[in-house]
Amino acid sequence: MIVNTGSGKGKSTAAFGTALRALGNGFSVLVVQFIKGHWKTGEREAFGTFPKAEFRSMGEGFTWDTKDRERDTQVALAAWAFGRERILSGETDLIVLDEINYAIDYGYVPLDDVLATLKARPEQVHVILTGRNAKPELVELADLVTEMREIKHPYKKGIKAQRGIEW
Amino acid sequence: MIVNTGSGKGKSTAAFGTALRALGNGFSVLVVQFIKGHWKTGEREAFGTFPKAEFRSMGEGFTWDTKDRERDTQVALAAWAFGRERILSGETDLIVLDEINYAIDYGYVPLDDVLATLKARPEQVHVILTGRNAKPELVELADLVTEMREIKHPYKKGIKAQRGIEW
Repeated sequence: MIVNTGSGKGKSTAAFGTALRALGNGFSVLVVQFIKGHWKTGEREAFGTFPKAEFRSMGEGFTWDTKDRERDTQVALAAWAFGRERILSGETDLIVLDEINYAIDYGYVPLDDVLATLKARPEQVHVILTGRNAKPELVELADLVTEMREIKHPYKKGIKAQRGIEW
Repeated sequence: MIVNTGSGKGKSTAAFGTALRALGNGFSVLVVQFIKGHWKTGEREAFGTFPKAEFRSMGEGFTWDTKDRERDTQVALAAWAFGRERILSGETDLIVLDEINYAIDYGYVPLDDVLATLKARPEQVHVILTGRNAKPELVELADLVTEMREIKHPYKKGIKAQRGIEW
């Protein structure tokens, strides 16, 4: 169980790198995206070239700054129900819960249920949770936790996000 | 220009993720590895499925704790000469100098030459430098700098590195 958190870049990108490494080793990988559009075209294209890769953007309409909290909660819970079922079934080697930390932090997904599911998962199932503000209980349960800290960001220098590199 | 530094995991994995994203967008990518074996089988397998991906492990025999400093310097300089030529030629969209920060920090590769090369590179060439102890001058020159901080590491819990996830 891996947690990538912090305010810097690289949380999801490192999870993506780990997913590709796992695919390269013949593992099956499922990505459940809790924020729509967070994985960009290039990542999905690269990911999609592997037959054992599965991508589910369950976060349709879910963004962390939306006004419709009730709908967001429903969507986040649906994404979590899908991920939870697959974690417990043991059929997938690696499951990336991309940006789930946001969904937990906003109270859309219950932390207790996530903790209980992770504790009950089959031994061979690897799980990566990404997003800012990882809960201390998740950090405690995790095997590996990395905080990505922003030291310098191009937008602050007036440079726009660049195709192929950042999206 | 991106720098991934810090003592935590995810520096090279995030660079690998960015490289795959770029490949997914049709970019050409070259990885020059300054420490042999740092990219593991799964990553190289996944990377190798893309025709525009090129991997050079120039760090044969080069490790940061070796005893033969003279040979290490020669190997690191050869890796750097190769990378420098490709950066300046402009023929490759993204060049990852994996673990070059180690080589610079150990004094194997001259910082001034790296800085001059990066400043002189064609505008469309993206470069990612990874490794601990990134020099302040590189941080200053970079567009995006992320520090990966280790919050928790599985080896400290007595868990061995796991195939498909960590190598």
